[in-house]
Amino acid sequence: MEVKERYLNSPLAYELYQAIAHLPLICPHGHVDPRLFAETDYPFGTPVDLLIIPDHYIFRMLYSQGIALESLGIPRRDGAPVETDHRRIWQIFADHFYLFRGTPTGIWIKDELEQVFGISEKLTSSTAQAIYDALADKLTQSDFAPRRLFERFNIETLATTDTATDPLSYHTQMRASGWPGNIIPTFRPDAVVNLDSPNWLDSIHQLSQVSRIEVGSYASFITALENRRAFFKQMGAVATDHAALTAHTEHLTAATAEAIFARALSGNLHADDARRFTGHMLIEMARMSVEDGLVMQLHIGAFRNHNPHIYEYFGRDMGADIPIQTEFTRALKPLLDCYGSDPRLTLILFTLDETTYSRELAPLAGHYPALRLGPPWWFFDSFNGMARYFDQVIETAGLYNTAGFNDDTRAFPSIPARHDVWRRASANWVADLVMRQIVDDEDAAEMMHDLAYGLAKRAYRMGEKA
Amino acid sequence: MEVKERYLNSPLAYELYQAIAHLPLICPHGHVDPRLFAETDYPFGTPVDLLIIPDHYIFRMLYSQGIALESLGIPRRDGAPVETDHRRIWQIFADHFYLFRGTPTGIWIKDELEQVFGISEKLTSSTAQAIYDALADKLTQSDFAPRRLFERFNIETLATTDTATDPLSYHTQMRASGWPGNIIPTFRPDAVVNLDSPNWLDSIHQLSQVSRIEVGSYASFITALENRRAFFKQMGAVATDHAALTAHTEHLTAATAEAIFARALSGNLHADDARRFTGHMLIEMARMSVEDGLVMQLHIGAFRNHNPHIYEYFGRDMGADIPIQTEFTRALKPLLDCYGSDPRLTLILFTLDETTYSRELAPLAGHYPALRLGPPWWFFDSFNGMARYFDQVIETAGLYNTAGFNDDTRAFPSIPARHDVWRRASANWVADLVMRQIVDDEDAAEMMHDLAYGLAKRAYRMGEKA
Amino acid sequence: MEVKERYLNSPLAYELYQAIAHLPLICPHGHVDPRLFAETDYPFGTPVDLLIIPDHYIFRMLYSQGIALESLGIPRRDGAPVETDHRRIWQIFADHFYLFRGTPTGIWIKDELEQVFGISEKLTSSTAQAIYDALADKLTQSDFAPRRLFERFNIETLATTDTATDPLSYHTQMRASGWPGNIIPTFRPDAVVNLDSPNWLDSIHQLSQVSRIEVGSYASFITALENRRAFFKQMGAVATDHAALTAHTEHLTAATAEAIFARALSGNLHADDARRFTGHMLIEMARMSVEDGLVMQLHIGAFRNHNPHIYEYFGRDMGADIPIQTEFTRALKPLLDCYGSDPRLTLILFTLDETTYSRELAPLAGHYPALRLGPPWWFFDSFNGMARYFDQVIETAGLYNTAGFNDDTRAFPSIPARHDVWRRASANWVADLVMRQIVDDEDAAEMMHDLAYGLAKRAYRMGEKA
Repeated sequence: MEVKERYLNSPLAYELYQAIAHLPLICPHGHVDPRLFAETDYPFGTPVDLLIIPDHYIFRMLYSQGIALESLGIPRRDGAPVETDHRRIWQIFADHFYLFRGTPTGIWIKDELEQVFGISEKLTSSTAQAIYDALADKLTQSDFAPRRLFERFNIETLATTDTATDPLSYHTQMRASGWPGNIIPTFRPDAVVNLDSPNWLDSIHQLSQVSRIEVGSYASFITALENRRAFFKQMGAVATDHAALTAHTEHLTAATAEAIFARALSGNLHADDARRFTGHMLIEMARMSVEDGLVMQLHIGAFRNHNPHIYEYFGRDMGADIPIQTEFTRALKPLLDCYGSDPRLTLILFTLDETTYSRELAPLAGHYPALRLGPPWWFFDSFNGMARYFDQVIETAGLYNTAGFNDDTRAFPSIPARHDVWRRASANWVADLVMRQIVDDEDAAEMMHDLAYGLAKRAYRMGEKA
Repeated sequence: MEVKERYLNSPLAYELYQAIAHLPLICPHGHVDPRLFAETDYPFGTPVDLLIIPDHYIFRMLYSQGIALESLGIPRRDGAPVETDHRRIWQIFADHFYLFRGTPTGIWIKDELEQVFGISEKLTSSTAQAIYDALADKLTQSDFAPRRLFERFNIETLATTDTATDPLSYHTQMRASGWPGNIIPTFRPDAVVNLDSPNWLDSIHQLSQVSRIEVGSYASFITALENRRAFFKQMGAVATDHAALTAHTEHLTAATAEAIFARALSGNLHADDARRFTGHMLIEMARMSVEDGLVMQLHIGAFRNHNPHIYEYFGRDMGADIPIQTEFTRALKPLLDCYGSDPRLTLILFTLDETTYSRELAPLAGHYPALRLGPPWWFFDSFNGMARYFDQVIETAGLYNTAGFNDDTRAFPSIPARHDVWRRASANWVADLVMRQIVDDEDAAEMMHDLAYGLAKRAYRMGEKA
Repeated sequence: MEVKERYLNSPLAYELYQAIAHLPLICPHGHVDPRLFAETDYPFGTPVDLLIIPDHYIFRMLYSQGIALESLGIPRRDGAPVETDHRRIWQIFADHFYLFRGTPTGIWIKDELEQVFGISEKLTSSTAQAIYDALADKLTQSDFAPRRLFERFNIETLATTDTATDPLSYHTQMRASGWPGNIIPTFRPDAVVNLDSPNWLDSIHQLSQVSRIEVGSYASFITALENRRAFFKQMGAVATDHAALTAHTEHLTAATAEAIFARALSGNLHADDARRFTGHMLIEMARMSVEDGLVMQLHIGAFRNHNPHIYEYFGRDMGADIPIQTEFTRALKPLLDCYGSDPRLTLILFTLDETTYSRELAPLAGHYPALRLGPPWWFFDSFNGMARYFDQVIETAGLYNTAGFNDDTRAFPSIPARHDVWRRASANWVADLVMRQIVDDEDAAEMMHDLAYGLAKRAYRMGEKA
């Protein structure tokens, strides 16, 4: 048996990994709830509260094998009863943990139990309750409170993702507490920018309130957004985040933008209004980024809430978002015509369509000064996903037009496991380049440092120089 | 020279392969002619009858290098003369066998000669006639008759593919003979469902006859199909099979379906009728599967009969079908909205567009309880095709949302070689997971058993429990 | 540390590589300036003239990191001043050479310095000026003049690419000089065929002049093109080359073709005229190839001049061409319906959309006698690009429906490095097939010879027999 170091392809990969394994974590994009850090010892709850209920990677797999979300304790929107016995839920999870063989979720859970909670026994039907006990016990200890884990995880910066109308109260509370953990907000205006968002009008009202600017027109909408960006920046934000179904961009005249906005306010959108307005606002957001220096992130290609039953009973972010074919070359051209060559803009692109890596994204990022490629995202945040990314992106874009890693997770305790996967995947890739004499040892060491730390820090303008 | 065990990447892969090499073959989808087994000693004919004339993988490659199909003995539709000297045809094949270097066809032929017929000499111009003699000699022996090979191949179940109007006479004859080989039909209604099929009206007349239901309306069409499904099920069928150019599904009202069907009967189809009706019938077929429990297979994306000259002179299935770009996320939504979450449905998807693996199929199968992914199909039933499939599918879908292997072949004696390729490809993949400590030995052993045997049996509801 | 032979995966790959490393280079497609060889000792100029200014692979990467093209000495169309101090430009290049880690450009430059110029020191900020000195010194020596390098590189045939209206004066001069280097032209009519080319009317006037046929109609246009093809063939050409945004082909009636051509002459093109005319002319060019035996090359999928600022100030071929999604199965059908099965045609296809490899191109080339697949092109002319090509193409198309390698470069001194990458990538691929017993040693040796030499020679009808 030729078993190797965990996840690694060669002794050299291990050597390269070891040299950067201790570096602090840069987490420039994610969905951790800032409430966890607002108070000193925020309680995670039960093992199921911690690991199952908030993690759609886990319950989508169980659902795909016929397990009802109700039996996993996922709350229903209509308040209908769901399973409340967390030991029983945990048993179902353990009974089906074999489903995660070879998946990143399987790797993360195993690593998390072992590295964060010191539980190295294999999770099976028969070990389920003992592991539940051990976990539940840890979760009562203040050593396992969020702030303590943040410190232990050696996180240098953690960015949360916050709606444009969020008052950022937890961030304020955190700072006021004197705790030195560097947790910063990210400005995400989708709910007010995408005219077809559920409850768009409510969001606009909130925007008026929080910005103290009456948003009754496109012009005041723009002013309110600029106001909120300034507030986020003052609260430490370094970036904005935007999600769209497609990468469509187009420049509307002020008159057209006003007319569409007025139709949205009166609830009379024309067929293509929402798509065109989003496409226009992406260019506007790039313009604001040029002006205020916030890094712009753009995530493309998720068909949201594909399963209407799940949406009806459980709402959004329930594992029912499915990727679609994506096009960047033509779609982004109007934006790039305006700002693609402007060094004041950093625009980081994310895709769910891997065919765009070598065909569009790497050639674009290898040319336009404003562009950087985000790491493999969502379904591709995995060993194979990362290997394909390195394989298909770097030869054309170069390493230095990429943005390093981000964990993109709402599962706070999985953060070290996710960064560790990236660092080991990076080591596999770089080691192969060294062994084939494509880069030398000196290059390799610098590349490893950049992959683990420098690239993310520079792309998000956190002060690291090249 | 570091030569390894045949097709395997590591000693561990060999170990894993060895442990499951003896398992019986489950063949839930294929195109073997049931006539082979209807009588005791059905004769295969010459080596060319066995290996060249029925195998479009072989003659398409020879054709691509300028060899006329006539010179290979492929019969013309117009009855024009073709080569009848099978020794001469065999010589052409041997002279050009180098064309198959590195192809799955090359692997299958070599393995078939060696493992089935005991011929280990390399096929070249100079060995051609001696190998022909040896093969022809074997084919006269009753040990090499189809039923004997079926037993020797250790096939547990073999599914054929049969049109909806097929009376299944050979299946009946086989059962009546008392031979215990488990050969079952599969219900394939394309010829009556796709309104633009050649000879659709003839097929509808046959449907009326065989079902004893006068198909004069959409309503009677549905009843006749339900009648045929019941007959197939009674004859042992566990599945249906559907081919379509795209994955388009849409729900028509009964009135619209009736109107389109009436137009088809009167030969006055509107432009989009056939596409819409097929899309509607896929949903209807899913509905029937929910009711009768037959597993539904859907094969998408072949542009049939791309070469008009080949079609004119030789007809269909002559190696001139070419894949096209395929979309599932939006196209299947209407069907999945109805039945995707219904555990009574199993819908197995096949694609010729590998870009859909990671982008659409794995995310869909990793969510919807009704969905399973079929193995790599047609052009992708190969070592690289399988490696890409494991690489791109499993991390998101999980192994247990896949349907194991099927050989999909009309070349009966190639069945063991094809399953062997799958089992070795599986061993390569699992061994790599073990060596990198992503799964342990216990997981690996279960995964190998499932890949070789359990997954197919469960997906096709042949009685295996998880 | 398990460092291997340069770029190779195994000792067997090294053995296979060594056996063909000495073979002459066949360069059937490229963009080397024939002027280099017209006179005995054409001077390359400075190291920057040689390596930086003509190579958009290099300056696009520097531009992507915010370095202005002006500072690299790239001439502006408006004659505005640009950097003229080549030592300073070289220093910028060296300071940023780390950007090319893991890229083919990084590999080529390093190999070129070492193998062609004998400079093995690593290019860094501190070695920049010394390497500049060494290079500049070599470039003054007649041993490093283009003709001497051509001989030293062991180039058997080098094809240039020339517009349809090119008088081929340098080729004539070269032949007249008595120098025996075999440099042949390639007929590229894009500028007269694509009606929306910049300066199309000027090109038509040139075509009239050079062909001595007054091009005032579609009919005379066709005659003039046939005239030019005959001239190119007489000058040694073996092939034509065509670039198009899409693979669209369609057959126009003579009347429609005449009408569109007349609209083009009068400057009144309708919306879809250019696209339709190009699609028609591709079929016409295939017809001419059937008649005159010139091999037809078709390059698909580059969105040219994506960045309007770069185009305005620096013109075309400045690294701002970006690939788009490409479709072949339906698009090429009209052409293939006419000539796909005609053995007198060889049509070599190139793509920038790798998803078409396994989905469309390999199935098409594995069927149609006229089709061959060109090697991985442009952004994919790299170790990973080649590995993906072998992986995704050969199992379906077979090796013998591919066209070997071409370097496609305007950077003459990089030619050996590029062929060396292909030969080593080939060795990696073939060695793996041998080690896994998919091919034997005898097959492997023949495959290596074909990959390095025979396939290109046969595909371009340079006299090599199978």
